[in-house]
This record gives sequence, structure tokens and C-alpha cells, in this order.
Amino acid sequence: MSASPVTVLGLGPMGRALASAFLAAGHPATVWNRTPGRADALVENGAVEAGTAAEAISASDLVVICVLDYEAVRAVVAPHTTALKGRTLVNLTAGTPDDARATAEWAAAHGIGYLDGAIMVPTYLVGGPSTLVLHSGPADLYGRHQHTLQAIGGTCVHLGEDPGRAGAHDVALLDIFWTSLTGVVHAFALARAEGVTAAELAPYAKGVAGLLPDVIDAFADQIDTGSYPAGGSNLRSATAIMSHVLDASHRRGVDTTVISAAHALARRGMTAGYADDSYAHVAELLRD
Amino acid sequence: MSASPVTVLGLGPMGRALASAFLAAGHPATVWNRTPGRADALVENGAVEAGTAAEAISASDLVVICVLDYEAVRAVVAPHTTALKGRTLVNLTAGTPDDARATAEWAAAHGIGYLDGAIMVPTYLVGGPSTLVLHSGPADLYGRHQHTLQAIGGTCVHLGEDPGRAGAHDVALLDIFWTSLTGVVHAFALARAEGVTAAELAPYAKGVAGLLPDVIDAFADQIDTGSYPAGGSNLRSATAIMSHVLDASHRRGVDTTVISAAHALARRGMTAGYADDSYAHVAELLRD
Repeated sequence: MSASPVTVLGLGPMGRALASAFLAAGHPATVWNRTPGRADALVENGAVEAGTAAEAISASDLVVICVLDYEAVRAVVAPHTTALKGRTLVNLTAGTPDDARATAEWAAAHGIGYLDGAIMVPTYLVGGPSTLVLHSGPADLYGRHQHTLQAIGGTCVHLGEDPGRAGAHDVALLDIFWTSLTGVVHAFALARAEGVTAAELAPYAKGVAGLLPDVIDAFADQIDTGSYPAGGSNLRSATAIMSHVLDASHRRGVDTTVISAAHALARRGMTAGYADDSYAHVAELLRD
Repeated sequence: MSASPVTVLGLGPMGRALASAFLAAGHPATVWNRTPGRADALVENGAVEAGTAAEAISASDLVVICVLDYEAVRAVVAPHTTALKGRTLVNLTAGTPDDARATAEWAAAHGIGYLDGAIMVPTYLVGGPSTLVLHSGPADLYGRHQHTLQAIGGTCVHLGEDPGRAGAHDVALLDIFWTSLTGVVHAFALARAEGVTAAELAPYAKGVAGLLPDVIDAFADQIDTGSYPAGGSNLRSATAIMSHVLDASHRRGVDTTVISAAHALARRGMTAGYADDSYAHVAELLRD
């Protein structure tokens, strides 16, 4: 069977990476961007640049969009409901679960097939074996286009019919990524204030990152079961440790806003009587 | 050569793990705790329980202390400067770099050898190959006791003469660990509010943790050189992503204090003109 054609709307860094991945997998690709001049390298590799969004949409049954945000998605697709009708729109733009659900409702009202997805890796990994793309929406639509979508990379997963489900995973995972990196950047700043270079700290920082997967598994089990045995370290010691980080930061004039917020959460857990439990118990204070 | 004797002061979970590791490596171990009743299992494995701290200190040239905090260290050792004189005190209690430096000054004033260390793994890993212990203080003292200290586990490192150096690494690494875990717990709370269980999210969360080491290396290089090329993702997109996490959390009534603080920092970076740079550039805003 010949590879199915695909249209890519939006040629920012991620859109270009997506189009390249489809081309590399042998799919005829039509591309379009609101402002021109982004498609030259793609055209050299065989893409067809459409002059208008309507023309791009009409070129393929599968239309992939990846733009800045859902407002930009609406601006691109809202004028083209007629062209999109009967086709499948796969929206890989980052946003919230509710954004995805609202867009799915809009699509359903116009007879447009809709899948919402989240690309969980940076652009330079797209098309490679370590890429992870999460999709949600109608299973039959995903099944129909799975082979083409697989060109985006190593692991493509369908998480369920709720179109917000990919976005729910996305925001939760990005929450972990960017909160962790905020800790990394703060740690480098604190270390430097103590005369330790980032290069000196980095090998140990990577070791700390390597401890996270086991804790993630343990915390997941605790949170799902509502039982929080302390294991290696309890909330009391976590709170004391955060106090040390806070204190050390204060003494060197390093900003403490993020670690203060984490410490305040830990202290709320102490007040709630969780001192001898795992730190994961504070998850219950975060809801409602 | 026969294994050198060692004294362990403080028999909380970590102190007991340390004593067990020394015993397992064949070192005669004398142990002591402020409140009795903690040494039974250790005594069964060959430890000698001292009746007083002075008696415990007098039993070994190498005295290891690991208690709740530096205040507890002072309470234990301050009355025993005479017994400690000429011996080496290795303090593995968690604290700040300045706590370590102050204790080193006190020790020097009393003719006590002093090394300050940090145990970078939970108790159940102590004595095993994946343990990491960081030491700082006089190199000759470390060299003299290195063989014995090696019993604590896989990797023992001497970071330099400044006694605060182990503590500086310690607070920075714990900053990463607990800030990251705050992100993990928040992500689980947010996912659950969206109908995604922790068990469903965990495999992907571990994947995110697996992305951190490469970013840590890239950020370290950027921070040491003061040059912040964006690579896969810039501050603008990080700020937008944090907005999505914030927005999604607000919509489900999930607490936003920590991610709000991180987002505010990112926005300060935008205001400072770092939008097209790597997120690591905000490290410069954290220092004074």
C-alpha cells in the first residue's frame, strides 16, 4: 500500500519537525504556514507548499495542526469548517484538557473527525525512536490514521476516547518536567553562590534524577491506594531538608520563592498530621 | 591489616544503617544513642553499646555522628571536647554549608579532626553499591579514614578542603530532589482531578524523569559559560507551558502555589529579555 498523504498546518519548529518526519517516512506532505517563508527546506525534501489553508486542508484526509496555542488553532481552522468536514484533524498543539474538549465539541458540531495529541519530546527527537506522542479521541479515527501518525516517532499511544485525556497527561507531565527543571536551575544558582560550579554539581544532579523513577512508582501506588507508608524518608525529614535549602539560599541571597512554596506545602502536611507518612500524602492537600 | 574500629553516635534510622554497614565490612563498632533501646539489633550483630557518649568516643579514633540536625550535634559533642581531642569526628548530619563550617571551626579550636559529609541516598541503600557519600574537610584526615568510610557504600568522594563543600552539594542536590518530587506529587493530583490515575501516569512520568540528565548537562554548560542558546525549547515556550499547567490546575481546583512561583520566575525571565534563550538563563535572576 502506498503511504497516505498528510497535511501539516503550522510550520514553527515543531510543525517543521512533524512535516520532516512524515516526509522521511514516505508520506506525501502538503504544508502551510500563516506567514510564508518557512517551507523552503521542506519543499526541497519533497513537500508541497499550499498557498492557502483551504488548499492545504483539501490535499489530505489527515490534517495535522501544531501551532502556538488553541487560540491560534481556532484562528486557522474556524474559517475552514466546510473544507475540513469529513476529514480528520489531529491537533498536536499544547494546551489544557478543557481546550482539547472544547475543540472536540466544535469539530463534532461541524462533522470533522478530531483527535487531540501531545508530543512529549523536544523537536529534535521527533521522528526518532525515543519520541512519545499521546493521542486521545475516537478509537476508530485513531485506528484509521495510526500508521501515518506512527511516522512522528517511536511510541504513539491512544489513551482513550475522552479528547482531554492526552492533554491531561501532557499538563501533568510538563508539570513534572518544568517544576523539576526549576529545581535544577535553582540548585545550580545555590551551588554557584557556594563556590561550586554547575559542571561540578551536574554528575551528582544526574544521579539525583536517576533516583526519581523508583520514587515515582512508590508515590503512585501510595496516591492510588490512599496509604502513605514512609519508607526511606518521611514528611518530617523532607520538611527539615527543605528548611536547610531555604536557609542556605537565604544566607547567600539566592531567591527562595519556589522552595518556599514547596516548604509551605510540606508544613501544611505536618499540620495535617502527616509527619510520619510519605511526602506523597500532601497530594491530598493539593486537591480542592 | 585488621579493620579499624569506629564509633557511631546517634541511632536513628540513618545511624543504625551506618553502624550496620561498618559491622558488615568487619569494623568493630561502638554505638551510642541519647535515648537507649535502639542498639539491640546492632548488638546482636556484634556492636558494643556504650553507656555514655564519652565512653563511645573513647572507644575509636574515628567517631561518626548522624543525628537530627546540627543543634543535636552540638548537644551531643560539646560536653566531650576532651574525649574528642586528637580523634576524627565525621559528621554526616544534614544541614547547611555554614553549619558545617561553624562546626569545623569549633572542632579546630578544640584540636578535634573534622570531616563533614552528606549521605545522598535513603537509609535502605546505605552499605550497598549505589550509595553516594560526599565528604569535605582536610584531605589528610580523609585519606587516613577513607578505607573505613568506604564501608558506608559504593561511592565515597572527597570534594575539597572547605568543610562546607559537602553541605553545599547536599543542599543543592536535595533542592533538586524535593522540588522535583513536589512537581511529581502535584502532577499526580492534577492527573487524578482529570480522571487519570497515578498508575496510568507513572510510566510516562518516569519517561520525563529520564529526560532530565541531558537537560542537566546542557543547563550546566550554559550556566557556567553564561551563554544560553535555546536548543529544543526556549523560555517563551516554557512560560506558555507553565501557564497551561496553572490554568488546568485552577480549572480543577488543584493548588497552584508551587507552579505559580515557578511561572512567576519564568515571567521575570521574559521581562528581563530572555524569551528566546534557554530556561537556564533564569538562574541569573535567582542570584541577587
